[in-house]
Amino acid sequence: MSILQTIFWSAGVSRYELSHQLAYSKSKTNSLVASLLDQGLLDEVGLLNSNGGRRAETLQLSGGLGVLLCVDLGATSLDLAVMKPDLTVLAQIAEPLDVRRGPGDVMSRVRVLMRQMLAQCGATAKQVIGIGVGVPGPIDFESGQLVNPPLMPNWDGFSIRDYLREEYSAPVFVDNDVNLMALGELWRLQRSLQNFLVIKVGTGIGCGIVCHGEVYRGANGSAGDVGHICVDTAGPRCHCGNLGCVETMAAGPAISRLATEAAQSGQSELLAVCLAEKGHITPEDVGQASRNGDAAANHIIQHTGNLIGQMLASVVNFFNPSHVFIGGGITRIGPLLLASVRQSVYQRSLALSTRHLEIQYTPLAEQAGLVGAGVLAMQETLKSRGKSA
Amino acid sequence: MSILQTIFWSAGVSRYELSHQLAYSKSKTNSLVASLLDQGLLDEVGLLNSNGGRRAETLQLSGGLGVLLCVDLGATSLDLAVMKPDLTVLAQIAEPLDVRRGPGDVMSRVRVLMRQMLAQCGATAKQVIGIGVGVPGPIDFESGQLVNPPLMPNWDGFSIRDYLREEYSAPVFVDNDVNLMALGELWRLQRSLQNFLVIKVGTGIGCGIVCHGEVYRGANGSAGDVGHICVDTAGPRCHCGNLGCVETMAAGPAISRLATEAAQSGQSELLAVCLAEKGHITPEDVGQASRNGDAAANHIIQHTGNLIGQMLASVVNFFNPSHVFIGGGITRIGPLLLASVRQSVYQRSLALSTRHLEIQYTPLAEQAGLVGAGVLAMQETLKSRGKSA
Repeated sequence: MSILQTIFWSAGVSRYELSHQLAYSKSKTNSLVASLLDQGLLDEVGLLNSNGGRRAETLQLSGGLGVLLCVDLGATSLDLAVMKPDLTVLAQIAEPLDVRRGPGDVMSRVRVLMRQMLAQCGATAKQVIGIGVGVPGPIDFESGQLVNPPLMPNWDGFSIRDYLREEYSAPVFVDNDVNLMALGELWRLQRSLQNFLVIKVGTGIGCGIVCHGEVYRGANGSAGDVGHICVDTAGPRCHCGNLGCVETMAAGPAISRLATEAAQSGQSELLAVCLAEKGHITPEDVGQASRNGDAAANHIIQHTGNLIGQMLASVVNFFNPSHVFIGGGITRIGPLLLASVRQSVYQRSLALSTRHLEIQYTPLAEQAGLVGAGVLAMQETLKSRGKSA
Repeated sequence: MSILQTIFWSAGVSRYELSHQLAYSKSKTNSLVASLLDQGLLDEVGLLNSNGGRRAETLQLSGGLGVLLCVDLGATSLDLAVMKPDLTVLAQIAEPLDVRRGPGDVMSRVRVLMRQMLAQCGATAKQVIGIGVGVPGPIDFESGQLVNPPLMPNWDGFSIRDYLREEYSAPVFVDNDVNLMALGELWRLQRSLQNFLVIKVGTGIGCGIVCHGEVYRGANGSAGDVGHICVDTAGPRCHCGNLGCVETMAAGPAISRLATEAAQSGQSELLAVCLAEKGHITPEDVGQASRNGDAAANHIIQHTGNLIGQMLASVVNFFNPSHVFIGGGITRIGPLLLASVRQSVYQRSLALSTRHLEIQYTPLAEQAGLVGAGVLAMQETLKSRGKSA
C-alpha cells in the first residue's frame, strides 16, 4: 500500500506510526512525507498526544488534493455529498426519489444536485478528483454497468460511468450499495476487523461481505445476494419464482403489508389510526406503535426479526464472521427487531460460530453508504494514481 | 512468496516462468536457482517443451529435502501417506477406523502405521520435514487442538501436535478435513481459481471455502459449518437441537436409514436383498440399486440431492463461487446424485450467481484430503523456514 493510501485508511497518523505501519525507516518516512507536504498532497493537522508526553503532528490527506463526489442511490431515496479527501463532509443533500423512474430522470436529478452542492462549497467540476456511486442492484464492477437489477427496471446495461463522464474528467466508480456500506464500515474500523458482514434491510435484503480484510464480490460480482435465501419452504411466492425467500417475507414491503392486514382486521387500533391518517403504514410506524405497547406491532417485528435471523443463521454457520452489522431503513423500527434477530441467530447457529459473534446496527447508521461511496472514490483514485507515481 | 513456495505451488516450472511469476530479473532468478540447486533444495527434472521449440529444464523441490507424513482421519476411515516434497506418493495405507474409539486408540494406530510406511520407503523419523493431519471436526488452527468436535467424542481439547511431537521433531499442522480438501484442490489448480467451495458429504456435511485465493477459516475457525443449515423448518430434530438440518436429513446415515425403511416396507426388492445379506445398507449400495433400475433407490438419491442442493443454493447466493466441488463418501453413489444437486441449485439460486457456476465431483476424488494434508505440511514448513532464510 502506498504512503497516501496508508494515511487515508488510518484517518490521521503520525510519522512514527506511519514508518511502523509501512515498515520503512524513520529517515525514509520523513523524506517521503516532506516531499508529499511540499507537493501539497498532505496536511499536518493539529497535534496528537503521543504516549511519551511528547506531541506528534498528525498527517492527513490535504484538502488541496481536491474534492470527492459521493452518491448513495437507494430504491426510494437519494443521498449525495461533497467530501474532502479525508472524508470530512463539505455539503450534503438527501431527498426521496423512486429509482424505478429510470436512469434518464434519476441521473439528470443527480447531475443537478451535484452542481448545486459544488456551488454551495465554492468548488468547480475540475476540482473533483473522484466520484463514488452506490446503487441498489448488481453491478459489473469492471465496466460499472448494472446487470439485470430487479429493483431497477430499465437500468439494465446502463452505464452511470459514461453518463457522468460527460461533465467530469474525474474517474467514476460504481458499486452495489451494500458493498459500499461494508467498505464504509471497514474504513471506519481502520481495517481492525478482518471478517464481517453488513446486512441491509430496506425495500430488499442484501449483504456486504468483508473477507481477509477486503470487500468480497464473488466470482461474478453477485456475492451477498442473501434476499433469496429460503426461510420457509411453504412460504409465499417471491418475484424471483421461488417460495419463501426472506426478502419477500421480511423486507420493508412485507412489514407494511402485515401491518396493513393487522389494521384492517381490527387487530391493532394504533395501526388502524395510522392507516386512516396516512393511507399507508411504514416500518417506522410499526416501530412507533410497538413502542406505544401495541401487541400486533410487537408480533410483526418479532416475526420479521425471526425470519431475518433464520437467514442469518445459515450465513453465520457458513461464514463464521466476527460481527454482523444490520443497516438500512428497517433499523428505524428500533431495538426490538435487533433483539429478535439475535435470539433467532443464537438459537439456530452452532455454538462455535456464535461464541464471540456480535450483532449490532451499523455504527455509521444512515451514513454508511455515503461514507462507503467516499472510500471507494478515494481508494480507487489513489490506486490509479499509485500506478503512475 | 519465496522462490521455493512458488516452485511448490507451480508443480514444476522453468527459470523463465519463475522470473516472470516472481517479477525478478533473469539474472537474479538464475543466481537464486543456482544457489538452491547447490544446497540440494531443488532438482532439475526432465525437460519441458517450451513454446518456441527450445526445451527448458523444469525445477522441482528436491527429494533430498526430506519426506512429508500425511494423515486424513475420517469419521470411519484412516488414510496415510508418505510423500516427497513435490507430493509424489512414496507409500500409502488406508484402513477402516472408527474415530469414536478416542484419541488413545486412534493415535497409537496412526503412530504404528507411520513407522510402518517410513520403513517401507526406507526413510527415518529424522528425514520427516513436516506432518499434516486432517480431522473431521472443528480445530483451533493456531493451537492444533480440537474444539468440541460433534463426531469425535472424547477428543475435545486433545492436541494431536503434542502427541506426535514425542516421536518427530518436524512441525505438525492440523486442520479440518474439508479445509484440507479445499487446499488440495487449490494446489492441483495451481491457484488458477480464486473463489470456490468444496462440500464433503459423508457421515456429516462440511464445506471448505477458498476466498481471494486462500483457504478461509472464519473468525473462530468454524467457517464452512454448513451441516446445520436448515432445509426443512418442519424436518426431524438434529443432534444439535434444531429442526431440519441438512446433515440430519441428507448425509450418509440419513441415506442408509431411508434405504433400510424402503427395504423393510417392501418398496424395494433389491435393497431388501442387500439388507438381508449384509445386515445394513450403505450409500454405495443405494447407488448400485439405482444403477440396476430400482425406483425406490432413485427416489432416495433424488431426494437427498435435492436437499443438499437446497442448502447449496443459500450458500451460492451468499458466496457466488465460480465452482462447487462435491466430495466424500457420497460421491460413490454415482452421477444421479450430482444431477439432482445441480437441478436443485439452478432452480433455487439467482441467475447471476449460477450463470457460470460449475458443480462437479472433486477432481482429486478420495485423494483430496490426503493431498491437502501434504500441501499443508509442505506450505507451512516452507513458511516457517522462510522466516529464518
